[in-house]
Amino acid sequence: MTRDESRRRSAGRPVKRVLSQERIVTAALAVISSGGYGALTMSALARRLGVAPSALYNHVESKQEVLRWLQDYAMSSVDVSGFSSLPWDEALREWARSYRNVFARHTPLIPVIAVLQVSGAPRTLAMYETVAAGLERAGWPANQIVPAIVALESFIYGSAYDAGAPADIFDTGTLAADSPHFTAAVQQQSGRAEGRAADTAFEAGLDALVTGLGSRAGLRAESGAA
Amino acid sequence: MTRDESRRRSAGRPVKRVLSQERIVTAALAVISSGGYGALTMSALARRLGVAPSALYNHVESKQEVLRWLQDYAMSSVDVSGFSSLPWDEALREWARSYRNVFARHTPLIPVIAVLQVSGAPRTLAMYETVAAGLERAGWPANQIVPAIVALESFIYGSAYDAGAPADIFDTGTLAADSPHFTAAVQQQSGRAEGRAADTAFEAGLDALVTGLGSRAGLRAESGAA
Repeated sequence: MTRDESRRRSAGRPVKRVLSQERIVTAALAVISSGGYGALTMSALARRLGVAPSALYNHVESKQEVLRWLQDYAMSSVDVSGFSSLPWDEALREWARSYRNVFARHTPLIPVIAVLQVSGAPRTLAMYETVAAGLERAGWPANQIVPAIVALESFIYGSAYDAGAPADIFDTGTLAADSPHFTAAVQQQSGRAEGRAADTAFEAGLDALVTGLGSRAGLRAESGAA
Repeated sequence: MTRDESRRRSAGRPVKRVLSQERIVTAALAVISSGGYGALTMSALARRLGVAPSALYNHVESKQEVLRWLQDYAMSSVDVSGFSSLPWDEALREWARSYRNVFARHTPLIPVIAVLQVSGAPRTLAMYETVAAGLERAGWPANQIVPAIVALESFIYGSAYDAGAPADIFDTGTLAADSPHFTAAVQQQSGRAEGRAADTAFEAGLDALVTGLGSRAGLRAESGAA
C-alpha cells in the first residue's frame, strides 16, 4: 500500500482491524468482567467484537483456545519481581501470594492451566524461567526446582478456589451433633474472628511448603521470616 | 397398602421405583464412566434412568445439585482408616494420598467441593469429623486443626489436577532458547526418568506440609517417616 492509498483509506472508512489474539483477549476480559465466566460464550464474544461468529472462528479454534489465551494473559500479571531483589524464600512467598490472588479472580482458568503445555504459552513460560533462574542463583539443585514449583502451584491453585469459598462453608448446621470434634475445631479456628480463615490457612501452608521444600533442597530460609 | 394389594402389584407390572438420590448418583456415575463428565447432561441422565427430563427435575433441582451429590458420594471413598491405627502424621499422609487419587478421577467435582457447604454433605462432614478427632487425640490444639485441613485440601485439589497433566506439559519446545534455566531444570527434575514427576512433586509437597503444619501445631512427626 502506498502512502497515498493509506491516506485515502484513513480519510474514508476506518481501516478494518484484524482480529488479533490481543483484541480477542481484551474482548473476552470485558465479557467476563461484566457477566462472569458464565457469560463467556463464542457468540457473546463475537458480539462484543462486532463480528459474526464465523469471522471469530476464522481466528480462534474454540472457546478452549480462548481460555488458553486468557490463561497466558493472566499469568503475565503474576508478580515475579521479588526474584531480582529478595532472598529466595521471600521471593517464593511473594510470587505465590500474587499467583493465588490473580487466579482467585480467574478460577475457571485453573483446570485449563493445570494441563496446559508451556510451549504454547510464552508468558507462562517466561514466569517459570524467572522462578527457575532465581532458585538456581540461590543455590537450589537443578533436579529439585521443578518438583518444588509443581508442589507450590498445586497448593496455589487449590488456595485460589478456597479464597472464593463462602465464609460459613464449614458451618455444620443441623449435623453438628454428628460431628462434635470438627464442629469444635471450626469454632476455634485461628483467623476465623477476623474473617480471614482462608488467608490463615494459605499462609500456614505456604510457610510449611517454602521451609520444607527448601530444606529438602539443602537450603535454609535466608530471610529468617519463617 | 395391604398385603393383598402389594401381592397384586408385584404379580402385575413392576412397582415403579422412586428416583432416589442414590439411583440418580448411580446413573450419573454410569454416564460419566462411559462418556466422561462432558457427557453428563440432565437429558443424558434422564435417558439413563429411563424417565422424562421433567420427571428427573421433580427430584433434583439442577445439574449443579447432581454434582453436589456426586461430590459427597466421591468423598465417601476417601480412606480415613489410618486415623484409627497410625501415628497422626502417617494417617494424614495416607488420607491425603487417597483423597488425591479419588479426585484425580473426578477433577470436574473440584470446583464444586471447594465452595460446598458441609451442612448439605453428610459424608464429606463425616470425613472431616474423623480427621479432626484423630488430630485432637494426637494432641493438636483445636485452633490449628481447620487451617491445617484447609491447607492440605488446597494442595490435594491442585495435585489432583496435576495428576492428569500430560507428561510433557513442561517441554519448552521451540521456546527452549528463551527459557534456558527452566528448560535445564525440566530436563533434570527428579522422578522424570520414571515418568512419575507428578508423584514426586506430590510427595515432596505432602512431606513439607505434614511436617511444617505439625511443627506449627507444636507436634513432631511421630512416625519418623519424614
